[in-house]
Parts: sequence; structure tokens; C-alpha cells
Amino acid sequence: MTSFEMTDRNRLRRKPGRAAYDRDTIWTVVDDALICHVGFIHEGQPFVIPTLHARREDEILLHGAASSRLIRHIAAGQPVCLTVTHIDGIVMAKTVFNHSINYRSAVIFGRGRLVDEPAEKLAALEQFTEKLLPGRWADVRPPNTIEMKATAIVAVAIESASAKIRQGGPKDDPPDTEWPAWAGVLPLQMVMAPPEPAAYNHAGQPLPGYITDYLARFSLPDGS
Amino acid sequence: MTSFEMTDRNRLRRKPGRAAYDRDTIWTVVDDALICHVGFIHEGQPFVIPTLHARREDEILLHGAASSRLIRHIAAGQPVCLTVTHIDGIVMAKTVFNHSINYRSAVIFGRGRLVDEPAEKLAALEQFTEKLLPGRWADVRPPNTIEMKATAIVAVAIESASAKIRQGGPKDDPPDTEWPAWAGVLPLQMVMAPPEPAAYNHAGQPLPGYITDYLARFSLPDGS
Repeated sequence: MTSFEMTDRNRLRRKPGRAAYDRDTIWTVVDDALICHVGFIHEGQPFVIPTLHARREDEILLHGAASSRLIRHIAAGQPVCLTVTHIDGIVMAKTVFNHSINYRSAVIFGRGRLVDEPAEKLAALEQFTEKLLPGRWADVRPPNTIEMKATAIVAVAIESASAKIRQGGPKDDPPDTEWPAWAGVLPLQMVMAPPEPAAYNHAGQPLPGYITDYLARFSLPDGS
Repeated sequence: MTSFEMTDRNRLRRKPGRAAYDRDTIWTVVDDALICHVGFIHEGQPFVIPTLHARREDEILLHGAASSRLIRHIAAGQPVCLTVTHIDGIVMAKTVFNHSINYRSAVIFGRGRLVDEPAEKLAALEQFTEKLLPGRWADVRPPNTIEMKATAIVAVAIESASAKIRQGGPKDDPPDTEWPAWAGVLPLQMVMAPPEPAAYNHAGQPLPGYITDYLARFSLPDGS
């Protein structure tokens, strides 16, 4: 099964031409993002909390303090919704109505479980650390017993999902295309500014290769 | 009342030192963001949908197709949660456990209403357009009757809110501070790449001043 079944829960009613239900498309959107927004229900009230995530096949891993409300809710197996969004540009049309933004988003539905088997938990922490910065895990002090206890990992089994993507320029129809205003896209992109070393680094400590490699991934299209 | 009352709903249990309940702090986080993630409940299932927003005093304005599930739910006055998040950097510590990210987030609770009075609706559309790009409203073709009918605006009255902010470098304790790995912050920032004009612009049409002014707001700290 490379695509998720279209159901009442994940089907996009608005602009179905922007929808995707295949895992390849959805996973690319999910894996490219540092954080997701997790929705859950507590006493009839919806909550939406941003948190770091990692994906392993059809599961999303989240972590947090063992005492956190978010983690406890997910561990209890309540239905959750995880949404990931990238903003890629502002789409300026000649008409107010046709203004838009370019984006890639994914909406995931599932239920969680606590990951408490020690080897699986350590592997999840390694995956989180490597997602933040590939190469990092081997370079830093591993978690000790107290830290492992203070950290909780939950895995959300993905039951259903969809992606929604808008790309490209504005769409105006004649005669609006003759309107004098400038139309086009203002592309937005996340970049990395120069690293800021901690005061307690060793004096003159150089950036490791895996960090300089990583910085190159966040450069602008013109290479700056 | 410059601050929201701390209640069971908006009180931050984890890392209370990162919490803020005053409107100035919360509004800065909200107003700096293009989009929010809206959480609502439909048949016992939480949904989280990204959408553009604008704020007017203690209300958040959202817009969408009159037929959209999100808009209909909000217009019906159901409880919603709106969350805004900015990612400002990856915090690399000497220990796995102390890795973090720098961020500014705001979580808002409220209930919506449909904005259907024509003058209020038009003013809301002007505010959305001006938030996307200040100066834009006066330059583009205003909405016509059909477009006004196809667009729905909802206003969420903010009942409760909080912000959570992490800034600054990693925090390791001795003896971990002696660990050899490089520690510090990799700052992340949204920037604007060069504008991409629509094919149907007039030949050689220059960027208007309000767009070049806007681009300058998205430059890197070194001015590039």
C-alpha cells in the first residue's frame, strides 16, 4: 500500500487538485520539517502544541518530559492529529481574491503508545538527535539513566494521512491579467545564520565537518 | 487587563520560566507569523489545519471558502485552539539530553463567529491583504460581489492565551561542559529569495516600492 485510503477523515474537500495521498509525497513533507503541531482533546477542549518529531516507517515519534500533558495524552492512546506545514512563498495576484501562499502541508491521524523498551527508546533518541543534525549522535555525551527516566518517547501509529501542496505563480483570469499591479511570487525560505558558539566551548574550537556540511543545505538559491 | 488570567487551560506546567501571559508578548508572536495552526473537534476527532491569520485587538481573523469544514466549524462557535510557532534555531549541547530548539510560540483558546456584515468583512479582507504585504490593498483589483460571496471570514474571540519562548545558548552543567563536542546555536531564519514575476505582468514591469521595502525586512543579519 503506497497510498492512504481516501476516507471522510483525510479527504480534501477544498482544492482537491492540491491533494496527495501517497506515502512518498506525505513523507517528504513530514521529514523535511523540524516540528509538527499536535492536536489532542482534553475535557472537550482542543489543544494544539508544537513539538519536534521524527518518522520511522508508518509511525511518528515524539518526545518530551515524562510529566507533560501532551505526552501523557498521546501515551494513553487518544486520537491525535499531527500537522506539518512549510511556507514557501507569498503569491501576489492582480486581484485581492487570487492572492495566496505557496505551501506544503501534511495532516496525519493516529493513536499513540509509550515507547518504554530501553533499546527502542535509545534508538528513538538517536533518531531525534540525528534528525536535528546528522552526525551529532556520535559526537555528544549519551543519555544517562536519570536523563532516560526524565524523557518520555511516544510513537503515533499513522492510520490515515494526506498532503496538500500549492506551488507556482498567481492565477488571474482576463481581463484581470491587464490590471497594472505587479504580480508574482515572493519566495520564502528558511536559512541558517552564522553559528553562535557556546561560551564553554574550548577556546578556538572549530566547527566539525558534519556541521559545515549541514549549513550548506540551508543556503539560498544563489549560493549565498 | 494587559495579561490573561492563568487558568488550568493556558497555564504552562513544563518550563514555567519560558511562559508569558501578557498581551504584548503574545501579540508580538502572533502578529509576526503568516500562519497559525487551528485545532477543532469533529465527531470526537481532533483536526489541525494551517491557515493565514490576522489579529484585531482580542480577536483572530481567519478566512477561507464559505464551504470549508474549518470555517463552518469556527462559525458555529465550537471551542478552538490557534497555535503560532516560530523556529529560531537549533540548540546544540554537549549532551544529548540538553539539545533543544529556540522558538517563540503562542497558544490561543476561543470561540468564533461568522463575520457577515459587509463593511466589517471588507475591512477584514483589507487587513489580510495588508498583512501579507503592506501597501498591497491600494494596488490590486478589489473583490467583486461574487468573490465576496465565495469568501467567508470568521473572528475568534480570544478567551485565554499564553506564549512560550526559548532563546539563547545551550545549558550544560559541569563536568559535561568539558566534553569535546562543539556546542552552540545554529540560528534559523526565514528569508525572501528574489521575486518571481508572473508571465502576464506588463513587459519590464518594475517592482513597486512597497515590495522592495518589504524585501529589506527579510534580509540576513549580515545584510545579504
